[in-house]
Amino acid sequence: MSMSRVSPRAERLVVIGGDAAGMSAASQARRLRGPDELEIVAFERGHFTSYSACGIPYWVGGDVTERDQLIARTPGEHRERAIDLRMRTEVTEIDIAGQRVRARDLDRGAESWTSYDKLVIATGARPVRPEMPGMDAPGVHGVQTLDDGQALLDSLARTRGRRAVVVGAGYIGVEMAEALINRGYGVTVLNRGKEPMSTLDPDMGRLVHRAMEGLGITMVNDAEVTKVLTGDDGRVRAVVTEDAEYPADVVVLGIGVRPETSLARAAGLPLGHHHGLLTDLAMRVRGHENIWAGGDCVEVLDLVSGQERHIALGTHANKHGQVIGTNAGGGYATFPGVVGTAVSKVCDLEIARTGLREKDAHRVGLRFEAVTIESTSRAGYYPGASPMTVKMLAERRTGRLLGVQIVGREGAAKRVDIAAVALTAGLTVEQMTALDLGYAPPFSPVWDPVLVAARKAAAKVRPA
Amino acid sequence: MSMSRVSPRAERLVVIGGDAAGMSAASQARRLRGPDELEIVAFERGHFTSYSACGIPYWVGGDVTERDQLIARTPGEHRERAIDLRMRTEVTEIDIAGQRVRARDLDRGAESWTSYDKLVIATGARPVRPEMPGMDAPGVHGVQTLDDGQALLDSLARTRGRRAVVVGAGYIGVEMAEALINRGYGVTVLNRGKEPMSTLDPDMGRLVHRAMEGLGITMVNDAEVTKVLTGDDGRVRAVVTEDAEYPADVVVLGIGVRPETSLARAAGLPLGHHHGLLTDLAMRVRGHENIWAGGDCVEVLDLVSGQERHIALGTHANKHGQVIGTNAGGGYATFPGVVGTAVSKVCDLEIARTGLREKDAHRVGLRFEAVTIESTSRAGYYPGASPMTVKMLAERRTGRLLGVQIVGREGAAKRVDIAAVALTAGLTVEQMTALDLGYAPPFSPVWDPVLVAARKAAAKVRPA
Repeated sequence: MSMSRVSPRAERLVVIGGDAAGMSAASQARRLRGPDELEIVAFERGHFTSYSACGIPYWVGGDVTERDQLIARTPGEHRERAIDLRMRTEVTEIDIAGQRVRARDLDRGAESWTSYDKLVIATGARPVRPEMPGMDAPGVHGVQTLDDGQALLDSLARTRGRRAVVVGAGYIGVEMAEALINRGYGVTVLNRGKEPMSTLDPDMGRLVHRAMEGLGITMVNDAEVTKVLTGDDGRVRAVVTEDAEYPADVVVLGIGVRPETSLARAAGLPLGHHHGLLTDLAMRVRGHENIWAGGDCVEVLDLVSGQERHIALGTHANKHGQVIGTNAGGGYATFPGVVGTAVSKVCDLEIARTGLREKDAHRVGLRFEAVTIESTSRAGYYPGASPMTVKMLAERRTGRLLGVQIVGREGAAKRVDIAAVALTAGLTVEQMTALDLGYAPPFSPVWDPVLVAARKAAAKVRPA
Repeated sequence: MSMSRVSPRAERLVVIGGDAAGMSAASQARRLRGPDELEIVAFERGHFTSYSACGIPYWVGGDVTERDQLIARTPGEHRERAIDLRMRTEVTEIDIAGQRVRARDLDRGAESWTSYDKLVIATGARPVRPEMPGMDAPGVHGVQTLDDGQALLDSLARTRGRRAVVVGAGYIGVEMAEALINRGYGVTVLNRGKEPMSTLDPDMGRLVHRAMEGLGITMVNDAEVTKVLTGDDGRVRAVVTEDAEYPADVVVLGIGVRPETSLARAAGLPLGHHHGLLTDLAMRVRGHENIWAGGDCVEVLDLVSGQERHIALGTHANKHGQVIGTNAGGGYATFPGVVGTAVSKVCDLEIARTGLREKDAHRVGLRFEAVTIESTSRAGYYPGASPMTVKMLAERRTGRLLGVQIVGREGAAKRVDIAAVALTAGLTVEQMTALDLGYAPPFSPVWDPVLVAARKAAAKVRPA
């Protein structure tokens, strides 16, 4: 670093939110600029920083034994890197014109203003919590933050009964169902949709449904929850749907999340149709040179549909933070968008998707062909070969790959990466038939399942 | 099918070679054209058709219990599809001007000519068998064909001693070492190179070396075999190198293979620097409208280096056959080339590579940066997370991905597919840093190992 780079006074970067996006941004900015050049102040209203929210189901389920294993970097470790981290301190207002934020110390109640030259908004998401009677009763839990996870574990420890109801059958719902089964609970999943995993088409969700039933999970589709009943002690005792009542000693909400953008909204910053902040490719809030936003509070460009989406996923938050920190630190980086890749598992069933589902393609006006094939994870003759179902969507006329969904056992989830890269590169399914994918009998049939699907899709979109 | 398509006499397609490429071509041509339109005659000198040569090590090792499991389609099944298959019949001459082939019935010795309108050459490869004393002694085995595998198993059954020497430490060599360890043999691998797996750079091959030693395999590098010693019974008793003598009850040759193109050479067909047939993108032998070639006897275009290579791999042979059969059947298909993907394993160590090694890049005049990173197969806190080493090469100036090598445990091998698709699409390592790869704690750290490598490579090729 040459001396000429040191400003007369150091600039101040203020970060709102101490998890993946915010602290990745802070850390990367610090790597590029020392404390003499850039002061970094970060506010976090909770008790933890830089943790893996995606790991909470495995902590609850017992695969991960210690909460602290989920923490990538503690407040102390951030402070060692010259980041002025203010824990249990909630930002309550952003004053754009005045370039300052107001924050409240949640333990002492004191409020004060902090000015900024550059601002990073990484306020995350909040779980959808339907407004209905009993939703706030003890024993009803979200699992969005580490604090939430701790509260759920404390609640499980206090509760004698072993009946759990999970509301919602998306990623969090199915992962929490597995976690509670692993803890010895009887688990009922109440799903509003036709089939679990609405991020898949229903025909693929059906495969997950069957597998969950095979694990002893009671899966109820088309279940509209209307209220939560409490007992004499005030704790939850049942969940009521339009059709039935499900006794529950504990209830976990896995209905999904929404961007936490109330601060941004109050400050007049631009929000999209999904209530997330809108940014440019450098992750700057649109129209604001010195404000960046990333992680679960922003909308991202879906490169396949060309439209914005909201996706709460740690891997995106980390990438956003990296890009923001580079830019806020005086470098240059961009986040081009996503293709919608997501993987999960329920016990040994692996579930993966990327790109568009049938209804996504319909919604954005794309005409397509869809094919589904059955293959195996390894050469059919190799021990442990297990069935794998691959669904593939390709655009008519262009033959461009639009999406892939995979359900199977080992090797199913990460195979979706093949399609994720192909979507990014805009490959056609015909081009995909020639992909030089890894082949050896322990790892794949001689035609990889993705190639089998591509061949079928290519034949279907090919002019007669 | 309209009647007008039926020729006055059916055309005749002759196929030389009854394994993956040849019989895939025959089957695909038959799918497109019925027997009234196209007569198909196929010659195979061995006892088997359409089998997985790649599966032989697992059959020898006992993972696959029955030889017939390796056979995808028997001669009888091909004949049911109206393919006139002549087993144990070796084509001894191709008469290009006369459009005919001469074939000898190996059991009866009779020779006869068969004319063709269209010809497919799928004569495969033959193992490299160094010319030195003792190489043909009983107990010295190649493992190229199913007949070879059966001979080796018969030999193992007859031999009391349990000392095996494997000559060569490429894919076949390391897989055969595992197979023989699994059968309870003491295994010594004699490797001519600096480290095993010369398809990797030596620094990555070193990781394989260590893992093999950990399995109890004796790995000897820089070992130049000079002769094989035989005992009083005429059977092999030791392998001699320039430096030492290794007692052996059985010897397996895994030195690699060469295209089997003696017929093609005699017929004046164009061969490349690696002695393989040269074809166009439709897999037609260059300069010959009605002759196609595919599988282990051809050279393929390496899309990364822009030069021809010889790669003997079942997955390519099947793709070639599919393309040839489509074209020979009157349709249209092409094989654009390969990026050099290969995966393998030694017990639970997975080994993968795609694209160029350092020496390949040097040879074709590419300047590059190489990076190596250590990461884990799953989120670090998730049970079963295991180390994974990823090496990545990127071109200077353009930043284009040139190659990836991965060594690790579960999930290492097929992760190379990410790079295989990126190479096909010509992505830069900077573009790769933003890839939307599947993330969930059981499947990947929040930054997939391939992304970690891409970030490091991108930083290295980025202008200062």
